[in-house]
Amino acid sequence: MVNKMAKLGVKSSVENVLITSGSQQSIDLVGRIFINKGDRIITERPTFIGSMQSWRAYQAEFITLPVDEEGMNTEALDETIKLKPKFMYILPNYQNPEGVTLSMDRRQTIVKLARQYGIPIVEDDPYWELRYEGEHLPSLLSLDEEMGRVRFSGESARDLDHGKVIYLGTFSKTLAPGLRLGWIMAPAELIRDCALAKQGMDLHTSMFVQMVAYQVVKDGFLEEHIAQVREVYRERRDIMLNAMSREFPSVVKWTRPQGGLFLWVTLPEMVNSLGILRKAIESKVAFVPGSAFYPDGGGDNEFRLNYSNAKPEQIEQGIKRLGKVLASELETAALNI
Amino acid sequence: MVNKMAKLGVKSSVENVLITSGSQQSIDLVGRIFINKGDRIITERPTFIGSMQSWRAYQAEFITLPVDEEGMNTEALDETIKLKPKFMYILPNYQNPEGVTLSMDRRQTIVKLARQYGIPIVEDDPYWELRYEGEHLPSLLSLDEEMGRVRFSGESARDLDHGKVIYLGTFSKTLAPGLRLGWIMAPAELIRDCALAKQGMDLHTSMFVQMVAYQVVKDGFLEEHIAQVREVYRERRDIMLNAMSREFPSVVKWTRPQGGLFLWVTLPEMVNSLGILRKAIESKVAFVPGSAFYPDGGGDNEFRLNYSNAKPEQIEQGIKRLGKVLASELETAALNI
Repeated sequence: MVNKMAKLGVKSSVENVLITSGSQQSIDLVGRIFINKGDRIITERPTFIGSMQSWRAYQAEFITLPVDEEGMNTEALDETIKLKPKFMYILPNYQNPEGVTLSMDRRQTIVKLARQYGIPIVEDDPYWELRYEGEHLPSLLSLDEEMGRVRFSGESARDLDHGKVIYLGTFSKTLAPGLRLGWIMAPAELIRDCALAKQGMDLHTSMFVQMVAYQVVKDGFLEEHIAQVREVYRERRDIMLNAMSREFPSVVKWTRPQGGLFLWVTLPEMVNSLGILRKAIESKVAFVPGSAFYPDGGGDNEFRLNYSNAKPEQIEQGIKRLGKVLASELETAALNI
Repeated sequence: MVNKMAKLGVKSSVENVLITSGSQQSIDLVGRIFINKGDRIITERPTFIGSMQSWRAYQAEFITLPVDEEGMNTEALDETIKLKPKFMYILPNYQNPEGVTLSMDRRQTIVKLARQYGIPIVEDDPYWELRYEGEHLPSLLSLDEEMGRVRFSGESARDLDHGKVIYLGTFSKTLAPGLRLGWIMAPAELIRDCALAKQGMDLHTSMFVQMVAYQVVKDGFLEEHIAQVREVYRERRDIMLNAMSREFPSVVKWTRPQGGLFLWVTLPEMVNSLGILRKAIESKVAFVPGSAFYPDGGGDNEFRLNYSNAKPEQIEQGIKRLGKVLASELETAALNI
């Protein structure tokens, strides 16, 4: 894990890592460590469903900042961070659900403010290795470490321990989601707290699963596999984007992800994606309605599509069907105005 | 799982089962579902450390009933249950840490009172297949189902759904602890709640681990393996018990477990097992001091021994060393009175 993270430009030692039973458990651990009833946390709007589900159980109060094509909009962050959130939660790369990537400027703004106000950043980064075009941007963890290194004049691995970033990694999107294997990288003190909390949750992550993953990584299989997966997903993304251009009504907008699994569709405000989903299912095609990803309401005219999980011909057919449903629904909506 | 539980005399369907990442996660799920800050729960005194650790995180208040050679003493249960605990937590077979087994009379009393007052029983049963002598006693789950069947005049599998018992099973003590694989058997409604809570905790238990366990069970390997393990552990138990009779001072008392992994040693009240542990470690032998197992203090003159994890000659040697430490400590203590 330490080697894997070195690729992200992060120097770390084993004291900075906790192996978890997948990212969902990492998220739950963060909730258990940080959130007491009524505590505020900053998330993107929209954000990952699984995090909301876990942190609602700890009775967190969600403060949200909108996502645009450059990721979380940081204009209001300076003001928002003064509300003393327990942490901010950010998916920097090909965000779930919108598929957008946080710009370099915003990455720097976020890390700078986090350090200034002493607010931890939970960086959830399950998809970064699935980039189909463009260059990797530095992780919030590495930016934080860099700023720390300047300040503390370089104590190698221990720089991480001065940092504010809790980085969540996973094998789910690169090796297999069914394995349930992820990791947290963070200051050693926090890792010790997490390890203790994890003992009460499931003692430890399956040794058997860890041994299998070790073999797969050690012999280079995983690297080859990721390269293949990238090719397959890139093709599917392109097929879906092309089909959408052809089949969707012109008033419909969508994101063009540089990586990951998802893209995000925005309909005219007058239509409700939940209503359209019912019609879509009658035509044997489905999506996840936007409102599911909003911690505090909204997203009614939006929805998420996944291009990684269907074969090219299924994507073509599905987008064609969905295009017909959208055209018919938009026509009806226009008549009703 | 349904077939495995049928051996315990329990009729169930898949709606009554949730696969978990080991019993520790089952325990944690129970905590998340039932315990709010300050809620009371009834446990044995002493009881399993892992349960205390998890349920303390939910800020439970522990009400404890003492364990004797017939398991949890139920004399005060009628009074205690009126304090409206959220549940009672019981390890009926070769209890951790004392190694004692709950008698038939007490099993019936517990189930009857649970039904009368509508208080759930969490039955933690990791060791039952490791019985070295005597006959299996019916599980609290099966007793509860039986009483329900009389009352509801037999609706087969659905009897379980009228019941009060949440049964926790595991492969950790029979197949391998490193796998992290267990299950909860309970009324279908509670299983649905647990499944939803588990989604927020780790989505699901590793499919890979489940597939491996399925193969191992399906082909009969596990049954053969358990029979072998029983022989090995029985021999080790006997070696330890014999060595203790030979090597320990006569004022020291201990339990004689019919199964499982542990036995429990009681010293004269004037000596403290934590102090003795330090001396024992100098002689390269160790135990777990009794106080670790008491939710509300006590156990200072007690400790737990594990006989499953060392080879016969190591057991002989360890007990010999420990006997010497005990003799010397008891002598010193007597001189100081």
